[in-house]
Order: sequence, then structure tokens, then C-alpha cells
Amino acid sequence: MLVDFFTRLLYCRGKWICFILFYKYGNKPCSIQLWPEETIIKIVTTVKEMQARSESIRNQEKKIAFVPTMGFLHDGHCSLLRKGRLSCDDLVLSIFVNPTQFSAGEDYDSYPRDLEKDLQLAEKEGVDTVFTPTKEELFGKNFQTGIELTKLPRHLCGLSRPSHFQGVALVVTKLFNIVKPHVAIFGEKDFQQLAIIRQMARDLDFDIRIEGGAIVREADGLAMSSRNTYLSSEQRKAALCLYNTLQKSKKMVEQGEKNSSNIINEMTIFIHRHKETQIDYISICDPETLDDIDSINGPVLMALAVKVGKTRLIDNMILSP
Amino acid sequence: MLVDFFTRLLYCRGKWICFILFYKYGNKPCSIQLWPEETIIKIVTTVKEMQARSESIRNQEKKIAFVPTMGFLHDGHCSLLRKGRLSCDDLVLSIFVNPTQFSAGEDYDSYPRDLEKDLQLAEKEGVDTVFTPTKEELFGKNFQTGIELTKLPRHLCGLSRPSHFQGVALVVTKLFNIVKPHVAIFGEKDFQQLAIIRQMARDLDFDIRIEGGAIVREADGLAMSSRNTYLSSEQRKAALCLYNTLQKSKKMVEQGEKNSSNIINEMTIFIHRHKETQIDYISICDPETLDDIDSINGPVLMALAVKVGKTRLIDNMILSP
Repeated sequence: MLVDFFTRLLYCRGKWICFILFYKYGNKPCSIQLWPEETIIKIVTTVKEMQARSESIRNQEKKIAFVPTMGFLHDGHCSLLRKGRLSCDDLVLSIFVNPTQFSAGEDYDSYPRDLEKDLQLAEKEGVDTVFTPTKEELFGKNFQTGIELTKLPRHLCGLSRPSHFQGVALVVTKLFNIVKPHVAIFGEKDFQQLAIIRQMARDLDFDIRIEGGAIVREADGLAMSSRNTYLSSEQRKAALCLYNTLQKSKKMVEQGEKNSSNIINEMTIFIHRHKETQIDYISICDPETLDDIDSINGPVLMALAVKVGKTRLIDNMILSP
Repeated sequence: MLVDFFTRLLYCRGKWICFILFYKYGNKPCSIQLWPEETIIKIVTTVKEMQARSESIRNQEKKIAFVPTMGFLHDGHCSLLRKGRLSCDDLVLSIFVNPTQFSAGEDYDSYPRDLEKDLQLAEKEGVDTVFTPTKEELFGKNFQTGIELTKLPRHLCGLSRPSHFQGVALVVTKLFNIVKPHVAIFGEKDFQQLAIIRQMARDLDFDIRIEGGAIVREADGLAMSSRNTYLSSEQRKAALCLYNTLQKSKKMVEQGEKNSSNIINEMTIFIHRHKETQIDYISICDPETLDDIDSINGPVLMALAVKVGKTRLIDNMILSP
């Protein structure tokens, strides 16, 4: 008879310690094995160390999956990590609140951060390495390089956040060169971001497969977002209007409505019925180019951004006639 | 007793054939192995094939050196190839006349090309792979990504060729992602280009060592350039004024001249004494930032661009007091 209890993880004094406990009835006595170095989640803060680690993993012909985040992980991020875990041998998570994608007056300073909880979730999802550099490590003295796309950012969120996607493209390029993954996974909630990264990876010839992960929603349908934490309980109720807008529009399209303006007009009235809401955009567009579509004759992307109080929320869905 | 003679290289009908001769006294008889395929220079035209080849070489833990060029190779390029050959296991040369670094009205269409001769030289210098894609392979439909540096291009050649270095930064980023080298080597004749690529590689975290190769000159001192082929014999004589300017300035600095303006004024007069010359710039500047230096108290870069007839030539030298 053999009983194995193993892999007990204890979070202890800021470091993960992994006890692998082999508890056996049989020929051999009970034994306890302690493997701190090999099974502990690895936290890397410097570019050089991360590159060396990835290089060594690639040299073992192992595949690296990469999920870049700004931390404050929720189940949306975890679903991306699970997707990465399934497809590759080594799973890297980056946590970095990227200053270059925030404009002056946006919420860079107040963006929610909780590294300790993030590390617990990362451990639970089987992350091998967390890359969490400082701002100074990534944007040193005399930094002067920028990346810009000429078409895709001129839509949706790019209109009200003019330099946002330059900052995203820049930090993702840097992270790709640092983490050297085979696969990188981004959430489809940031649909425009995913489209831009796909385009940039193609244009710059990154040898990396870009994958999208489906939107994860709360029980009532609100898309998960680190920014949901800003909402008061009243605002939380109002915030549901984004998901309801998409659901109602989906039904309209399925019932034969082809005119985008009709849908957008009706939904504008619907959203304004909710307290503290202010529409940034409601768009029905081509899922690849993000160009507006007036007449719906095939699958289209419906995307919207609404401020609820001071919190700007986004959501999207593919609608098919 | 064991004697091994191996790796005899024979140049035969434009192709390298590698005989690996195991000549053994002992239990086993003499054997001759002929591996033609593996040692012939490889010509690659697609991104996918180049990436797969580099990936496979990296997986063998071999080091890749890369020399990007626009072809029409001269001894300046060959010196870079020799430098790469010495430092790495695998040597990649790219030949691509990059349209994005030429402005309208520049010499993109007439830029000299001679692939056959280039391949012969590449073979001679021990190049393993030549990557020579078409324009369409690198800049496909819907291409829309750009790379820009905010400081270094605002000097020297960047002033009269405003989008030139954006085009250089873009194609080099693409080539880095396609060839995946450990080391990339650029000529110091294009000093500003080298400075920009060093900065860009640092800013974007390319895990690639950037190396410069010293300027190679004709017997009389003219810096080698593919564009020298444009010069008439009269212009060829006048073109020497660039090198002579640098030599004269070097002497002035060594003899105690500290005032940059004095040197530049004197050299302007000197250059104008030559037929068909038109100065684009003469600059004495910081070798790292390329900012102008008025008073010479340490090593400075002297760089100049002069049109001789319609041909724009550049040259540079470090001057030390």
C-alpha cells in the first residue's frame, strides 16, 4: 500500500517554499524531500537574467508561452495562463504597469497593484517564471525609441487615447525580446490591442504565435477587469449596461437588423438610461481592419467604451447575422 | 595509435565541397565522407525558411553572426564578413536594397546591384547563408508599423534625409527577428547608422551584440562605398577631398586647435576648391549623442557629407587632442 501526499505549497516570509512530501507505507521509511530551488516559482526582475533564462529553456528545445499583464490578476488573466500552460513546456507571466501606455491625467499612479496576491495566483496556475521589472529597468536613461502603427490605432480606443497603443506596441516589443516566447497570449477584451499586436508581430517578423483568449465574465455578464475595483456598488450595477448592450445588439442582428446606425442609436439611448454613464464610443466595425461597417452582411465586431463615474470600461462581441 | 586528418575544403565549380577525411590506423579501415549539401552556401529568400534555419542553428548551441547589407559588396563589406567569420560558428549575410530608407528622388532604382558577384564574394568569405528576400516578402499588403528614434536621427545625415533612419531602424528590426543572430556587425563608415542601431537595440532589448567594423579605404584614402561606382574619373579625384579633410583636421586638433568652428571654416574653403563639390554638412560632435561640440577637449567625431556631382559621399574619423 502506497500513499503519496505531495506538493504542499507554503507561502512563507515573502518566498515560496515547496515541500514535496513522500509519505509511504512499505519497504522504505517515510521520507521528506525539500526541493526549494527547482520547484519554486522564479521571480526575475532584470532583463539580462530573463533573457539568459529564456535562452537556456529554448536551448533545451522547450516551448515558452508568455502572458504579459499589468498585474492585479483576475480570472480573465488566469484563463490566459491556463491556455499557456496547456500549450507549452514553460510558462512566463510578466507583471509590469507600463507607464508609456498611460497619458497624463490617466490612472497610472492609482492603477491597482497587489504583487503578493498575483504571485499566489501565478503559483496556483503553474507559472514557471514571473518577470516583474522596475520602470527604470525597462526605460533607462536616454531612452528614445518608439513604435507606431499608422492604421489600426486610428479607431475605437485609439481616438480618445492617442498615444496609448504606441506605448503598448513598445512595451510588447521589448517584452518579446526579453522573454523570447514561442507563443504569446492576450485577452480578447482588449480586442483592438490584440489586433494591433497581431499586425505588429507580422510587420516586424516576430517568430511568435499570437493567440487570443476569450473574455471572462462575472456571473451577471460584466467583463472582468482590474479597473472594476474602482466601481462603487451603484456604479457596479450601471456597469452591466455594457454587456447588456452587446446582448441586445446581438439579438437585433440575429433578428435581421442590418443597419449599424439603427443599433448604435438605440443602444445610445439604452446606455444613457443608466446612472453616471458617459459613452466614449459605440462601434460596429470590421474585426480585422476595425473600419466602420454601415451595413451588416457578415460577422462584425461590436465594441464600446463607456465611462461609469470616473472609470472607463470597455467590452466587445462578434455579432453574426 | 590514431591519426585524424579532417575538414579539407575545396573550392570547386562555385560550390564548397567539404571532405571530411577520417584517416585512421587502427581497428577500422580508412574512410572518406563526402557531405556536399551541408557545406554549400545556402541562399534563402523567405522569412519562414530563414527563421527555421536560424532556430535550428541556435538549438545546436551555435553562435550566429550577421552582416546586413544592400549588396554590391566591396572590401568594406568583406572586412565585416571576416570579423563575423572569426567570432561565430555560422555567418549570415543579407542582401536587400531597402526601399524604406530611400526618399523620393533618391537613388533607390539606380542603386547598384550585382547578386552574382556578391555571391562569389560571400562564398569566398565563408558565408554560410545569404538571405536575399524580395521587397514583397518583407513589406506585404497592409504593412503599417514604423520605428522612430527621437534624438539621434536629428543630426548629420538625418537632417538632409529625414525619413532615412526610420527606414533603417525598421528593416534592421525585421532582419534581427528573421535572422536571430547573436552578433550583428555594421560598418563604421555609416557612423550615425551604427549609433542609432546600438541605441535601438538597447531600447528594444534585442539580445544581440552590436559590433562596428573599421572603415576600409582605397589605396589613396577614399572610403569604400557602393556609390563610388557612380563617380567619373574627374569626380573620383575630387572625392578624395573628404578623406583629406579628415586628415587635415586630425592634424589641426593634434597641433592644439580646440575651436571646432575654425576647423570647419577652414575645411569648407578647402572642399570648395575641388570641382563639382557641394557640402551637405561638416560636423564635429560627441561620438555617442552626436550633439555638436564647440570646444575640443577629448575625442570627438568629425563627420561630413559632400555631394560630388550628383553622388553624395560620407566619411568620418575620431579626432583626439
